Amino acid sequence: MSMIDPGAQVEISGYRWVPPFAQGFVRDLRPRWACEEAGVSYRERLANVADKPDWLVEGQPWSQIPIIRDGEITFFESGASLLHLAQKSEILLPADPQRQATAISWLFAAFNTVEPPIFEHGNISFFAKDEEWAKLRRPSLEEFLGRRLAPLEARLSASEWLDGQFTVADIAMVTTLRSLGGSRVLAAHPAVEAYVARGEARPAFKQAMADQLAAFARHPDNTD
Amino acid sequence: MSMIDPGAQVEISGYRWVPPFAQGFVRDLRPRWACEEAGVSYRERLANVADKPDWLVEGQPWSQIPIIRDGEITFFESGASLLHLAQKSEILLPADPQRQATAISWLFAAFNTVEPPIFEHGNISFFAKDEEWAKLRRPSLEEFLGRRLAPLEARLSASEWLDGQFTVADIAMVTTLRSLGGSRVLAAHPAVEAYVARGEARPAFKQAMADQLAAFARHPDNTD
Ligand SMILES: N[C@@H](CCC(=O)N[C@@H](CS)C(=O)NCC(=O)O)C(=O)O
Ligand SMILES: N[C@@H](CCC(=O)N[C@@H](CS)C(=O)NCC(=O)O)C(=O)O
Repeated sequence: MSMIDPGAQVEISGYRWVPPFAQGFVRDLRPRWACEEAGVSYRERLANVADKPDWLVEGQPWSQIPIIRDGEITFFESGASLLHLAQKSEILLPADPQRQATAISWLFAAFNTVEPPIFEHGNISFFAKDEEWAKLRRPSLEEFLGRRLAPLEARLSASEWLDGQFTVADIAMVTTLRSLGGSRVLAAHPAVEAYVARGEARPAFKQAMADQLAAFARHPDNTD
Repeated sequence: MSMIDPGAQVEISGYRWVPPFAQGFVRDLRPRWACEEAGVSYRERLANVADKPDWLVEGQPWSQIPIIRDGEITFFESGASLLHLAQKSEILLPADPQRQATAISWLFAAFNTVEPPIFEHGNISFFAKDEEWAKLRRPSLEEFLGRRLAPLEARLSASEWLDGQFTVADIAMVTTLRSLGGSRVLAAHPAVEAYVARGEARPAFKQAMADQLAAFARHPDNTD
């Protein structure tokens, strides 16, 4: 069941339309997924990515989504949004102090240790794929990325989620790793690949994805 | 005054020695700086980077420092360490809910928006500087990095710190940005450069730096 409710206290910003290659990968997916897992209702605020509104330009240093609001309080960065939403529910952040500390540690690991080389892998694989530097960069980047994924492969061979039960850190890690979908480096890490598939199979993930895509379908070619 | 105290409840891990190019840039500097600002005493736990001890291999997925302990609770990732230490003191995390939300947003911005291209800039400038791909990559990376720094340049021309008063987010942002020291891209952003210098001029920063360097001086060439 979608947690979207126009009267909700929590607001999540997204884009009303993005080009097909980006659909399903826009970062409002993260707070949407968190809300679906935790049963927190939210309203949408959609921006035109090609002509950004003042609230986005003024509310986020790089004019990027997501921004989230909770009553009067505003956050930016998908990481800060996830952490805030997680604090609303033990489903996303365990009450046990060590499990909570570990979940927050993994949350930062997703954003600062795992995502940076995946972002660069996206550059060499898509945006700059025809450039000479991108071709020359691939071997060393794949090697580096392999060293980032190896500890995850070991851990996720033995555990369904990063630390026993599903937490907000898995939302961050799965959304980070799924950008590698179809790549050689992900295929070389079958336990990581299976973990991404487990995350994507969760009803809350599917609902969040359907709701992101539904907004794009309502605004074909970015028209009103 | 150094907050190092062998009997302290908080423990920060670091290396007992690293090669000269890395000295002053190892990430235990972040939690050390936070402790100095907040007046939280801590003990050190130093590892051999060339022959890592079990507690580091088992305690951090990538066998990297910092790990921090607070009583029985353990965190890894410098971001998680900073967030935990910040919650111990209003000096690092304002009590006002919106200022707190903004500080946490900037904390994630430092780790997920600003640091990734700076990390790659370090690759092309130092570790891979003689490789063909690194030379070819420089123009597009500098351009991208410039777009990451431009909003900071605007903001820090008008404000001493990211959001009015100094917070934990400034520890994260200054330690991230100072890796660009001496680069063309930092020189092109004088307000950002001045901000880094302001951070580095704080007594708490200087103490944290002195304490990191003192450990290396006690273990020349990584001998006991
Ligand atoms: N580190 C930021 C990155 C935000 C980001 O990259 N947002 C993208 C959408 S996924 C965006 O707004 N892109 C459009 C643009 O930069 O103009 C976060 O995690 O929130
Ligand atoms: N994202 C991690 C990165 C940690 C990291 O890169 N640690 C470095 C020291 S600054 C390290 O332990 N390097 C030695 C190694 O990787 O073997 C964090 O912020 O804590």
